[in-house]
Amino acid sequence: MYPKSIKNLIESFKYFPGIGEKTAERLAFSVLNMEQEQVEALSKNIVDAGKNIKRCKKCNNLSEGDTCSICSDNSRNHDMLCLVEDPKTVFSIEKLGTYNGYYHVLNGLISSFNGINPDELQLNSLIKRIQEDKYKEVIVAFKQCIEGEMTALYINNILSDMNIKVTRIASGIPMGADMEYVDSLTLEKAFDNRKTIS
Amino acid sequence: MYPKSIKNLIESFKYFPGIGEKTAERLAFSVLNMEQEQVEALSKNIVDAGKNIKRCKKCNNLSEGDTCSICSDNSRNHDMLCLVEDPKTVFSIEKLGTYNGYYHVLNGLISSFNGINPDELQLNSLIKRIQEDKYKEVIVAFKQCIEGEMTALYINNILSDMNIKVTRIASGIPMGADMEYVDSLTLEKAFDNRKTIS
Repeated sequence: MYPKSIKNLIESFKYFPGIGEKTAERLAFSVLNMEQEQVEALSKNIVDAGKNIKRCKKCNNLSEGDTCSICSDNSRNHDMLCLVEDPKTVFSIEKLGTYNGYYHVLNGLISSFNGINPDELQLNSLIKRIQEDKYKEVIVAFKQCIEGEMTALYINNILSDMNIKVTRIASGIPMGADMEYVDSLTLEKAFDNRKTIS
Repeated sequence: MYPKSIKNLIESFKYFPGIGEKTAERLAFSVLNMEQEQVEALSKNIVDAGKNIKRCKKCNNLSEGDTCSICSDNSRNHDMLCLVEDPKTVFSIEKLGTYNGYYHVLNGLISSFNGINPDELQLNSLIKRIQEDKYKEVIVAFKQCIEGEMTALYINNILSDMNIKVTRIASGIPMGADMEYVDSLTLEKAFDNRKTIS
């Protein structure tokens, strides 16, 4: 029904996770309304990103060189190492501009459901880094879910005899959220983690 | 903060209407997780669509040739011409598989707000087609809004002395919609357009 070029483009957009038929159609039609220049830039940038981006040898974050810009930055706080599930979280935390230590990207969380074992994560490289670079604190910044919980406990366990402090970012009520829309698990966590008002 | 290739890709995705920073980031990261083959297909299809798709000389629909597949299909109902705002609507109606006449794409609706005058729409070509091809009915299938209303009235007016029936697709409560969520304008329209139960 669609001309072939449009049909192919719609199929391509459906590669993206969370993009179904309707959205793929909308995106494809948007391409037809773009300036030639934008279309070419888009197409080029897609190929370039796939080609130029690799993993940082040290922290496993996305990088254009062998080591990423964060690992190469010697002015950061050498005491702290933030442990994240994926590179996206690194950029979310960097956007805050408040954390100034280093990162280590695990590339997943331990999950019996998804069949991810500890040996598939970047744990050996983590231990090596901690031994070599003498961090004083590992901050676990996983999402709040069973896999996050399990992986945090596992890591706390394997690091227990390494004389390093292991902390986890707080969970609780998100800022500005209406109490009536907060789910019960979050609310329970928020009660468990209550703090003295100082 | 992001490596340059990722930053460029995010910027490119922001060309799409309705795609902001967050979604552009999500899409860019998806590209990094795609197979090389998919990335190349996506990139190629974007350029191809921009290059191969033009407008049908007859109905102004999107087409790979001079005339689109619908206008070239002689087996369709020669009595009916469906008037639509944009090519996307043609494909939506074609998907139903029930309408078997021809289409005419206006390429917009008259809008004082967006500064679109009647002479910017494909109206001359519409009149020419009606004179030449002797359609018996023009079915107006615009969206339900002030612009749709105005354009429908305008067209009804200019076609009034051409001995052709001009109809408009019905507006009312969408199928399956909960009555409590139907907006008051729609409800009012639905009352106005009520029909005897037969």
